[in-house]
Amino acid sequence: MFYQEPWRLTAAEVLPLLRNKLTVTDYVKSLLERVQARDPEVKAWTWIEPSLILQQAKELDSLSVSERGPLFGLPIAVKDVILTKDMPTQYNSRLYESETPIAIDANCIITLRAQGALIFGKTSTTEFASSKQGNWHQNLTRNARDSKRTPGGSSSGSGAAVRDYQVPIALGTQTGGSIVRPASFNGCYGFKPTHGAISREGLAQWSPSLDTLGFFGRSIADFEVLADAFRLKDDEVASLTLFKLQGAKIGFCKTHNWSKAGQGTIDAMAKAQNILTTHGGQVEDVELPNEFSRVLDWHADVLVGEGQTSFLGQYLLDKDKLHESIQSYVDNSRKLTHRQLLDAYDNVARLRPVFDEIASKYDIVITPSVVDEAPLGLENTGDMSFCSMWTFLHVPAINLVGFQGADGLPIGLTAVGPRYTDRKLLRVAKAVGNVFEAEGGWLADPL
Amino acid sequence: MFYQEPWRLTAAEVLPLLRNKLTVTDYVKSLLERVQARDPEVKAWTWIEPSLILQQAKELDSLSVSERGPLFGLPIAVKDVILTKDMPTQYNSRLYESETPIAIDANCIITLRAQGALIFGKTSTTEFASSKQGNWHQNLTRNARDSKRTPGGSSSGSGAAVRDYQVPIALGTQTGGSIVRPASFNGCYGFKPTHGAISREGLAQWSPSLDTLGFFGRSIADFEVLADAFRLKDDEVASLTLFKLQGAKIGFCKTHNWSKAGQGTIDAMAKAQNILTTHGGQVEDVELPNEFSRVLDWHADVLVGEGQTSFLGQYLLDKDKLHESIQSYVDNSRKLTHRQLLDAYDNVARLRPVFDEIASKYDIVITPSVVDEAPLGLENTGDMSFCSMWTFLHVPAINLVGFQGADGLPIGLTAVGPRYTDRKLLRVAKAVGNVFEAEGGWLADPL
Repeated sequence: MFYQEPWRLTAAEVLPLLRNKLTVTDYVKSLLERVQARDPEVKAWTWIEPSLILQQAKELDSLSVSERGPLFGLPIAVKDVILTKDMPTQYNSRLYESETPIAIDANCIITLRAQGALIFGKTSTTEFASSKQGNWHQNLTRNARDSKRTPGGSSSGSGAAVRDYQVPIALGTQTGGSIVRPASFNGCYGFKPTHGAISREGLAQWSPSLDTLGFFGRSIADFEVLADAFRLKDDEVASLTLFKLQGAKIGFCKTHNWSKAGQGTIDAMAKAQNILTTHGGQVEDVELPNEFSRVLDWHADVLVGEGQTSFLGQYLLDKDKLHESIQSYVDNSRKLTHRQLLDAYDNVARLRPVFDEIASKYDIVITPSVVDEAPLGLENTGDMSFCSMWTFLHVPAINLVGFQGADGLPIGLTAVGPRYTDRKLLRVAKAVGNVFEAEGGWLADPL
Repeated sequence: MFYQEPWRLTAAEVLPLLRNKLTVTDYVKSLLERVQARDPEVKAWTWIEPSLILQQAKELDSLSVSERGPLFGLPIAVKDVILTKDMPTQYNSRLYESETPIAIDANCIITLRAQGALIFGKTSTTEFASSKQGNWHQNLTRNARDSKRTPGGSSSGSGAAVRDYQVPIALGTQTGGSIVRPASFNGCYGFKPTHGAISREGLAQWSPSLDTLGFFGRSIADFEVLADAFRLKDDEVASLTLFKLQGAKIGFCKTHNWSKAGQGTIDAMAKAQNILTTHGGQVEDVELPNEFSRVLDWHADVLVGEGQTSFLGQYLLDKDKLHESIQSYVDNSRKLTHRQLLDAYDNVARLRPVFDEIASKYDIVITPSVVDEAPLGLENTGDMSFCSMWTFLHVPAINLVGFQGADGLPIGLTAVGPRYTDRKLLRVAKAVGNVFEAEGGWLADPL
């Protein structure tokens, strides 16, 4: 099967084959066939150029074995808010319609290419990765599982392309819920590492206190490959053996937003708890202190306060080309004061070690990813209520798959842990994800 | 005098003249003459192209009066770690020797150009604005007042060019003391606004928790012009009238590093206190709680921890082209743990509102800028002990001029205030700076 349909493989599956059984050229041809067959429906890409992909593949195939890095031949889709020296970066903004590349790679792209990765194309985003659809691209990306529904945002194309087997790995960014939410809606894994663990140089800047680079993939093992590439290490080196669920301490955190959860998420949380208990996990409810109920409001304040600064240049250049929500940040139409912004910073800074302490009592903490399955329609990219707190607390968060909602669309759950325990979280999430995928009741592969 | 030597003018002086009495072309010709006469000795610039300056000037002069923005015709020097679409950005790194511009402006440059500023050229920096001289440019910048001495770093060329009257305004960045220290060593004003108050998109990223864009100028009024351009506003709108020193509450904060102060700084602090008392100021010593003594160590931890992430891409590209101090960040040769990094973040986050509260009892707090006057030699860019704490506390800091050391070189003092009181700080610092300049005993203009 591998040789007939290599596009089905995950990154961790294909990398050893690319060492000697499959050329990069043959692999990307297979992916390009998949793109050609499916993308007219999904519309995940804003820029993809087969000749450039084949040229990169040819150059990689010509390398001697000793020159082949750990990511040799791995195709990676890049959210179109990340600079790539050979492809345009357009931010879904009418201010950046030019198709001329900016001739510089973001730091994360330098890191990936230096280890052998192949940059496959640019994927759709909301305007500047904000919470609104751009006012430029009318050709909106559709959910990989149902073209009448949103794939979620802001990393819309990255989530859809990975779930649709058009590419094994995609880069996204998360400021609120822009990785976890599209991962949940499309039904793939999504990983937002600890804030600051990966350079953000060369990424669109909306909210430096929140913006985080992360990944979409179809297995947790793929994220372990990427964690190696970006040198994510815990202070306590995590074991490489498979984590055992028997006796594991597992927290379930419904958060103060639980009243927003729809039936799909309520059922997924209950089912997850049963599955893990059946496998011998010691499951406990995690109640966060009352102060945590305010993190969502503080998060909203930071989006406005930092958006005001971040978009000033574009606003002065030609404000009419910006979405009105972005104009309103610069205009500060909400009349946010600096006092409110500083309170948001200082209060959440105080809560970060509190949450680390709580989470460190568990091997993993499970919490909702989304309100429910992807809503109908393409304009509204969904509610980020269940994601924002983890972004602002700076903790690693992983969307796990395995469940589905009333209409048969995927519903994910999020695994979180203390800051800078990304490797332990990946290891435990792999074991948890395995049983969710096997027993959660979703339709894993609708192909 | 204005018409014979316009290069002598500050930004606030020249801007009204450029409205109708002086063409931009005539003004930049005057500056270019100054550059030609002086820069062979000072070596402030890494890239300056008279034809591009004159072309920008011509385009500006051709604008109708209604098209002329608030910064119309203002020439600005740009530290060579900030992207400029029409000039190369080389970071004083052997990895970026190409003279091809990257075809994108940093957000701050977009903001300046949109209001009529003229980007004059790129000024020297240490390698990636780190604490070490680069291993590429051997042609090191000299102090504008004594070519045998360092101009300070990392914004070496920006400080020297402004003090040397080669340009009225320069952009710099500060991660430790990279604006305040060269301002003090060369004898000009330097302004590091509140962290986050100006976009850092398009700046080299070393330490996102610390990196701050700021300015060099020869008057505080110039910073008020720039504060308007970047829309810095306090919650309480500061009065536009000149601040009165009579009855003003002025704190003097020697900090826990006072034992490092040399005679020049000891004398400057004493003299400043006398001058302000004479003018009716109510001067008090500010003792910071003991925990503040650890901020310097925490700052050092963040430089290593964030440097490890920020330079990974360049390291993988070709680590031998990086200064060994930068290689050692990525290698984490200090064996910094994430626990230490998180403690640094969390502890300083706790101290920020404590300092804001202390500083809010005063109209201004005066504190040392540097250990002493600029040391002899060009390799060592000086000690940042008196600057780092304010950078990490995220408060606005302004280097004031007026004093000098045993060898007749300038010694500055720093004015600080609570976060996001930049406008009040500028207003009070203007009154304080006036009396320091008049009575501090320095040789203001050595021409």
